[in-house]
Amino acid sequence: MDERLRKQLDFALEIDKEKNIFRQTHLSGHGRNENDAEHAWHMAIMAYLLREYANEEVDIMKVMLMCLIHDIVEIEAGDTYAYDEEAKATQKLREEAAKEKIYSLLPEDQKRELIALFDEFEENETPEAKFARAMDNLQPLILNNSNGGGDWKEHGVSAEQVYKRQGNTKKGSEKLYEITDQIIKENIAKGSLQP
Amino acid sequence: MDERLRKQLDFALEIDKEKNIFRQTHLSGHGRNENDAEHAWHMAIMAYLLREYANEEVDIMKVMLMCLIHDIVEIEAGDTYAYDEEAKATQKLREEAAKEKIYSLLPEDQKRELIALFDEFEENETPEAKFARAMDNLQPLILNNSNGGGDWKEHGVSAEQVYKRQGNTKKGSEKLYEITDQIIKENIAKGSLQP
Repeated sequence: MDERLRKQLDFALEIDKEKNIFRQTHLSGHGRNENDAEHAWHMAIMAYLLREYANEEVDIMKVMLMCLIHDIVEIEAGDTYAYDEEAKATQKLREEAAKEKIYSLLPEDQKRELIALFDEFEENETPEAKFARAMDNLQPLILNNSNGGGDWKEHGVSAEQVYKRQGNTKKGSEKLYEITDQIIKENIAKGSLQP
Repeated sequence: MDERLRKQLDFALEIDKEKNIFRQTHLSGHGRNENDAEHAWHMAIMAYLLREYANEEVDIMKVMLMCLIHDIVEIEAGDTYAYDEEAKATQKLREEAAKEKIYSLLPEDQKRELIALFDEFEENETPEAKFARAMDNLQPLILNNSNGGGDWKEHGVSAEQVYKRQGNTKKGSEKLYEITDQIIKENIAKGSLQP
């Protein structure tokens, strides 16, 4: 097998491990914890179906790629819960080291391309990154809401914390932020979120 | 919330159930059974990274979409193991009914679009469908191979059965079929596949 293809297949096998990185979000129907690969798959489909609500015109293919790969670093760095301030303090450092290690399995051109996509997602400045980030917030929100806000209750999350995070949804989509705001208010009203 | 967005979000929540549809393939590292959402995520990334090996030029965005959605029908129809001839006899009928039911949750234009994509994948005639099919074969093959061919051993699968199925890989990518053939031969040699 030639070197380039061998590297690509080694990477393909390595990312299988993302299916073992579990998140705080639970599947609908009060299911088990979701893993990163499932989350990424779900985000990519949602991005495609909801692209008409992006604030700016987006290259949807690029958005979908960002959705699919944005958590690969967590194979090495682990999942960081959105409302765990202690873990978030070291997240950047952990993910930078992981990024270099994992993407180095790929041929150089693909390594550079995927790292650039990941960095763009993290920097959250381009229309594509902002819309992908909106998906990163909306996807767990609809699962959690379908379970009566159980993930927020379990961690004692406050409405203030959720609003802070969901500000990123607004940057990507005003329209989807309206729905987000409505869901947050409903969850405050029923006591799932601390006001 | 307007009707269109409500339908889109209902569909987004419904497809969460794909994460509960388990396949016969096991994750690398002798892990648990893989589910359809994980499989689809993995295929979509592999399609993007391996697109240079497609026999014909492909619209890679379309290939990725096919990969992401091709198993949604299994939420209703269940997974059909590639080497279960009895289940395969009723697969088409089950999946046609499922397709109508699930995609009807979407607004009409998106329902039509996703059903057309699914049908194109099933018909396996366009360059995009053929390459997506190659991914549908290659992805479980590399997992199974990494586990010493355990999935084949468990089901007493023969090399003849695998070659029959992997003919579709050749339609999508001669180059990836070479690797496939090499993997099959190695697994015959070590007794994981019945010759």
